[in-house]
Amino acid sequence: MTTGVRRRMGVEERRQQLIGVALDLFSRRSPDDVSIDEIAAAAGISRPLVYHYFPGKQSLYEAALTRASDDLAERFVEPQDGPLGARLLRVMRRFFDFVDEHGPGFSALMRGGPAVGSTKTNALVDGVRQAAYLEILAHLRVEEPPARLELVVRSWISLAESTALIWLDGRRIPRGELEAQLVHDFAALAAVSAAHDAEMAGLLRRVFAEEPAESPFTDLVGRLVSLAS
Amino acid sequence: MTTGVRRRMGVEERRQQLIGVALDLFSRRSPDDVSIDEIAAAAGISRPLVYHYFPGKQSLYEAALTRASDDLAERFVEPQDGPLGARLLRVMRRFFDFVDEHGPGFSALMRGGPAVGSTKTNALVDGVRQAAYLEILAHLRVEEPPARLELVVRSWISLAESTALIWLDGRRIPRGELEAQLVHDFAALAAVSAAHDAEMAGLLRRVFAEEPAESPFTDLVGRLVSLAS
Repeated sequence: MTTGVRRRMGVEERRQQLIGVALDLFSRRSPDDVSIDEIAAAAGISRPLVYHYFPGKQSLYEAALTRASDDLAERFVEPQDGPLGARLLRVMRRFFDFVDEHGPGFSALMRGGPAVGSTKTNALVDGVRQAAYLEILAHLRVEEPPARLELVVRSWISLAESTALIWLDGRRIPRGELEAQLVHDFAALAAVSAAHDAEMAGLLRRVFAEEPAESPFTDLVGRLVSLAS
Repeated sequence: MTTGVRRRMGVEERRQQLIGVALDLFSRRSPDDVSIDEIAAAAGISRPLVYHYFPGKQSLYEAALTRASDDLAERFVEPQDGPLGARLLRVMRRFFDFVDEHGPGFSALMRGGPAVGSTKTNALVDGVRQAAYLEILAHLRVEEPPARLELVVRSWISLAESTALIWLDGRRIPRGELEAQLVHDFAALAAVSAAHDAEMAGLLRRVFAEEPAESPFTDLVGRLVSLAS
């Protein structure tokens, strides 16, 4: 299949290389459309050698998705200093970087389908959601979230996913605008919850009291005031 | 399998009866846990007779999901008169009625998994989302939505789904509170979008100008004002 000299790789090195090649292909097209032959060709090895390392496309897909999930979860990690709004905005930028890099594969995964909807892939997606959820709670300095805070954070994570999916479908809105909007959406959903519940109102007051005069949250309030006038 | 006299049903009548029995079982437990034997027993017929009408559990599941999808899409239909906020609130109530009636099946479907993640079931779910989207656009009296309005409406539909799923997981927040909150969330997401875009601001002004003094939207503004004070 290849010409010239091929350096012999160790088993783990070869596995990691195959995962990298597969992740690249699964990111750029829907996983259903990627064949083992293509992965073999891109890795510069024979089809039987791919099967030597992975029993089939599903296991290679799951290995690639595991790497992508770890990568995404790492991008959520943000130092807990400076204004909260600015922290969230940096995380949103890294989230959209990830979505941008893995567009078609991300869409296929989140929309479900034969190649991507296994118990294992669902568990990986839920693992990333849980990592995002725990990271946000840590930034809010809450260890035992009341049900309404859990709802706000988890439903906002789902909103970020659906916003990214809609963005990928034609990219008709600049991503920078969506990153800023999602930070504002978080504040808006928290404010609606606080408008219904005293405990959430107390939590929101504490968080916002720590924000500086210039932050994405005060920016939103300024925009809404000028909108209402 | 049954005792006593069994009336002979016509083919279509029997099919419809089986779909109803299956939908009831698939709603009350995760579809993966429901067997053809149980469906046969609940319908009062033999297992082979079930297979006479449906080639397997998957086709019966898809028929049941088709009926549930039609049912849900019908609940979105709301006359276009009276205040918009009140219309949305009535739709949210009927949506939560549906989610309440089909809880475990709804969760299993939306969380994906072996029995529920087929191309056909994904298409049914997307069909319901599209019906909800078009219904909301009709209420806003918009035929050709700008990209930002499409984003607000579609991402709010996804927020309603995730809110319902989180509610089903323990029902720790009264559903009436979530129904009202989702109407407020719609206004909040639209306001954030309007804070970033002049076209959305114009649209929002037109819609809110038609709301009466007493509406879920003015209720939200009142709640937020008292929160801020």
